[in-house]
Amino acid sequence: MLNFEFKNPTKIHFGKGQLSQLPNEIPAGVRLLMVYGVSSIKQNGIYEQVKSHLKEYHLFEFGGIHANPEYEVLLQALDIIRKEKINFILAVGGGSVIDGAKFLAAAAKYEGDNLWDMLTYRIRVEHGIPFGTVLTMPATGSEMNSGAVINRAATQEKLPMGHGPALFPQFSIMDPEFIASIPVRQIANGITDAFTHVLEQYMTYPTGALLQDRFCESILQTLIEIAPRIIENPADYNTAANYMWCCTMALNGLIQKGVPADWAVHSMGHELTAMYGIDHARTLAVIMPSHYRYNIHSKQEKLAQYAARVWNITAGSIREKAYAAIDRTEAFFHSLNIATHLSAYTPDFEGAAQQISRRFIERGWYGLGERKTLTPADVEKIVEMSY
Amino acid sequence: MLNFEFKNPTKIHFGKGQLSQLPNEIPAGVRLLMVYGVSSIKQNGIYEQVKSHLKEYHLFEFGGIHANPEYEVLLQALDIIRKEKINFILAVGGGSVIDGAKFLAAAAKYEGDNLWDMLTYRIRVEHGIPFGTVLTMPATGSEMNSGAVINRAATQEKLPMGHGPALFPQFSIMDPEFIASIPVRQIANGITDAFTHVLEQYMTYPTGALLQDRFCESILQTLIEIAPRIIENPADYNTAANYMWCCTMALNGLIQKGVPADWAVHSMGHELTAMYGIDHARTLAVIMPSHYRYNIHSKQEKLAQYAARVWNITAGSIREKAYAAIDRTEAFFHSLNIATHLSAYTPDFEGAAQQISRRFIERGWYGLGERKTLTPADVEKIVEMSY
Repeated sequence: MLNFEFKNPTKIHFGKGQLSQLPNEIPAGVRLLMVYGVSSIKQNGIYEQVKSHLKEYHLFEFGGIHANPEYEVLLQALDIIRKEKINFILAVGGGSVIDGAKFLAAAAKYEGDNLWDMLTYRIRVEHGIPFGTVLTMPATGSEMNSGAVINRAATQEKLPMGHGPALFPQFSIMDPEFIASIPVRQIANGITDAFTHVLEQYMTYPTGALLQDRFCESILQTLIEIAPRIIENPADYNTAANYMWCCTMALNGLIQKGVPADWAVHSMGHELTAMYGIDHARTLAVIMPSHYRYNIHSKQEKLAQYAARVWNITAGSIREKAYAAIDRTEAFFHSLNIATHLSAYTPDFEGAAQQISRRFIERGWYGLGERKTLTPADVEKIVEMSY
Repeated sequence: MLNFEFKNPTKIHFGKGQLSQLPNEIPAGVRLLMVYGVSSIKQNGIYEQVKSHLKEYHLFEFGGIHANPEYEVLLQALDIIRKEKINFILAVGGGSVIDGAKFLAAAAKYEGDNLWDMLTYRIRVEHGIPFGTVLTMPATGSEMNSGAVINRAATQEKLPMGHGPALFPQFSIMDPEFIASIPVRQIANGITDAFTHVLEQYMTYPTGALLQDRFCESILQTLIEIAPRIIENPADYNTAANYMWCCTMALNGLIQKGVPADWAVHSMGHELTAMYGIDHARTLAVIMPSHYRYNIHSKQEKLAQYAARVWNITAGSIREKAYAAIDRTEAFFHSLNIATHLSAYTPDFEGAAQQISRRFIERGWYGLGERKTLTPADVEKIVEMSY
């Protein structure tokens, strides 16, 4: 097991009716900016429910933070923060809105000249405006971690922020009843996203972290168990609760401790979103199988363990079990109507591999993956395999 | 799944050489009281190692906090805290020393007339002196939770404190290398303690908390896997690391969220420690099998799930699998040289059941267990079954 540091100070209020905790968690007297996405929270009533608990605050609002939160849009919200001297942010939405709030929290206190440097150089965020979240769409785990990914259309970039203690929400409200109004497509995305988050932290070389492996397998098994039920009926409260908690546990730092992490699937996937606008989760489903097949020599041990414990695949050699596990995972994504080849999403896939490889060279991104050995040339081959 | 609130702010430094984090975590300029147990940390060198990192502090010391930390002893340490205006405590030891530090942290800020009221009435601890820990013996999870249990010899009482945010350590340093010097008897106790902590939160009526169940099973499976290896060789670093992390995860709040909890085994077990001085873990091994057999009707579903997933017992009815799982668990404890009957620990066991039942009546402790239905009369029968 590797050495690790673990601290996660976010307070979770989980369950029915937890919106009523908002006045207990947001300090009295703050100048509060509520940020949200597009129209969905107005259609499903969450917007009104949230506001009914915020009557005592000096409240400002900013809507329009779309999926893959856009730098240019966030700069508009930052203007409000500066002009209105906002000192608390409430994000109401899914991972994109929460990630956007994290960017805003950090940007408001950032002292450098160029805000985008925070992302280019993954500058650790020590100081920020405090913020809380109301999670309306589970997937990214952003409600209980210090990660955020921001999109910049002008340069076709999608880059992660540099973590740091100021990027943890003060609190997150997670009411599984909100899941009832999420479109099936988004739920399928959420399952795929959480599933891949676990894989990125699990499908690496073994370090004898027995409990972490089992926790990963627990999340994967639970996601597999609930996937057909939650897609069939998102209003099934208990299934929704399990789905929601799995997504959080997949990326709140716990399963990452003491083990190496890959994240190469995300690095490549982000490029596909930036270039083609493909849903984040679907880019992961496109890249993951090729990445694992290409790196079968270094991932086969853990893949074979995953095959046996999660998919009950016990026949064959380690290599055979490893390949069978990749096939089985693709089949699972297909069962969610998630295609696992790039050509299913865009007719313009030719050249994607070369373009992504070129970008990684430009950024100096050599040494991806848990062994930091993947080169842009490897990336080119992996993306090509995913066509 | 039940509604829940979750927040655990303790920072963990886990791994080799993490003592060097002490000066980063203890604020400069504090008046620091280091508390520890008996002689073991002086014999194994940890005492000197810790002190080598504390040279810059105004340091006071208090040794002599034994297993089942004693109220009268802690009052002596409290005198030092008051006299020397201590404003940070460092606990170096196992669960007893850490629990003692929690009592001290709370007692120093307690404003009531009678300190023992904190325990009698389980008063929630909102304010206390900040403290950190160096964990030298894994078992109780106290290094990452807000629980503590204090003993009072004069009244033969052993009672839990009332949690509250001030009882979380600021930080805990967990170096698995420290396990090499722990006597095998204590390691067996630690495994048994952690195992039972999981059972108390898992062996209840099902609430559809699928992930929490799997996390519980993960900890149990890992403890079963590593038990013979860590007892054979406590110096095996990786096994020690898994043992240490399992003990923490067994009682840091995570697996408790969204599910009912029993804790009746602990309630009865504490009495056996208070009355006979039996090691805490061993009292749990004594009570657990009788408690589960007595309550087989309400626990059989989860016991059967445990039988199948953890012990691979798949034959028979639910009831048969449930009983087989209890037998298998007792056999596991026996493999650690942990006896599971009271008569193995004391010749004076006659009358224990009546005495414990009487005490519960005196304290008004009706309604134990996850359904709050167990009466003192039930307790009497369970303890009697454990003779």
